[in-house]
Amino acid sequence: MKGQAVVLLSGGADSAAVLYLARKQGYAVRPLIFDYGQRHKREIRSALSLSRALGAKPVVLKISLPWKGSALTDALLPIPGKRTRGIPLTYVPGRNIIFLSFALSYAEAVGAKAIFIGAHTEDYSGYPDCRKEFFDAFKAVKDAGTKYGKKIRLKMPLLRMNKAGIIRLGSELKVPFDKTWSCYKGGKKPCGVCDSCRYRAKGFKEAGVTDPLVTGCK
Amino acid sequence: MKGQAVVLLSGGADSAAVLYLARKQGYAVRPLIFDYGQRHKREIRSALSLSRALGAKPVVLKISLPWKGSALTDALLPIPGKRTRGIPLTYVPGRNIIFLSFALSYAEAVGAKAIFIGAHTEDYSGYPDCRKEFFDAFKAVKDAGTKYGKKIRLKMPLLRMNKAGIIRLGSELKVPFDKTWSCYKGGKKPCGVCDSCRYRAKGFKEAGVTDPLVTGCK
Repeated sequence: MKGQAVVLLSGGADSAAVLYLARKQGYAVRPLIFDYGQRHKREIRSALSLSRALGAKPVVLKISLPWKGSALTDALLPIPGKRTRGIPLTYVPGRNIIFLSFALSYAEAVGAKAIFIGAHTEDYSGYPDCRKEFFDAFKAVKDAGTKYGKKIRLKMPLLRMNKAGIIRLGSELKVPFDKTWSCYKGGKKPCGVCDSCRYRAKGFKEAGVTDPLVTGCK
Repeated sequence: MKGQAVVLLSGGADSAAVLYLARKQGYAVRPLIFDYGQRHKREIRSALSLSRALGAKPVVLKISLPWKGSALTDALLPIPGKRTRGIPLTYVPGRNIIFLSFALSYAEAVGAKAIFIGAHTEDYSGYPDCRKEFFDAFKAVKDAGTKYGKKIRLKMPLLRMNKAGIIRLGSELKVPFDKTWSCYKGGKKPCGVCDSCRYRAKGFKEAGVTDPLVTGCK
């Protein structure tokens, strides 16, 4: 065993692949799941289900952001159906910064050796907190602002991969994609129209893998 | 008016001085208070009281850290009475990183122009997340990882001041020090023994100012 690793787990296909990859690399995984008022609550159930499938004990952190400003947490804003230019409405201010800060606190408290996050640039959807520059800056925060600093490694194994590559990787790692969830709307079935659904569909198609979540859907 | 400023307000003398300074500089202040399971709950009441005194509307964010590891949040660990070498037991892993991440999210959501934090190096008590290197790294995170980036300024006006200087500044700004709270133990009266009490006492003494919280106490 390489020691413990905190894995940010959203319940989507990307973080599921990262969870399985971290385990494959020999880490004892500690999934960290956030309930931040997202409209797609089903994501959380998926994250719990993925953790159970690996026999890992997840921590669910409830965060209540009293301020608005994102279509993902504000029921008054529409989920965009088409890709827009610039930073989309689904951007949640500071989300990855907040998530990584908690992951860092958790990693320090339990003496974990690594933090895994499934962000990637190709499909970063215009979010500033999914860019390499951001992660590099966060590494400096980790090194300067914590007790263990460089002893905790920040890992973004998907950063330079595209969605098809991630789906292929997940397939090799036997990720149960039927337990994942990507749709921003969080209905009973994926909407097929939001950014997240369309990226997922494109990725599965290009990877030549059938998405078990879509099979049989309209 | 210079616009809005999010001010991290703990309820202690330092952040109280920063709150009054931000107001003096012309910002519409938005105090951000954290309830993170600290043993000294009285701190939160003090922060609310300071906000009311300025007519500012505070936001209180409740954060529940399910992991342990600090004497400030873990009732099983003792609050150290004497200054120890290295990082003290009262260090809360990632605390300022988490606090600043939320402040950044808040500032972005409301379009604030600045974030104020009352950290300073002289009295940083061995905490890695109170050092200049940490704040410089966090500025890079802010610039790379958010929508507004450099339009939000991170201000640490006390960084190079000592406690006596801060008390003097607070006196000039007419900070109601009787409404502040510093003791880690959070009893009815300051314990006078913990790191925080001793720094405060030293600061008031060197500044030649009477601490209204101690007057009449043993």
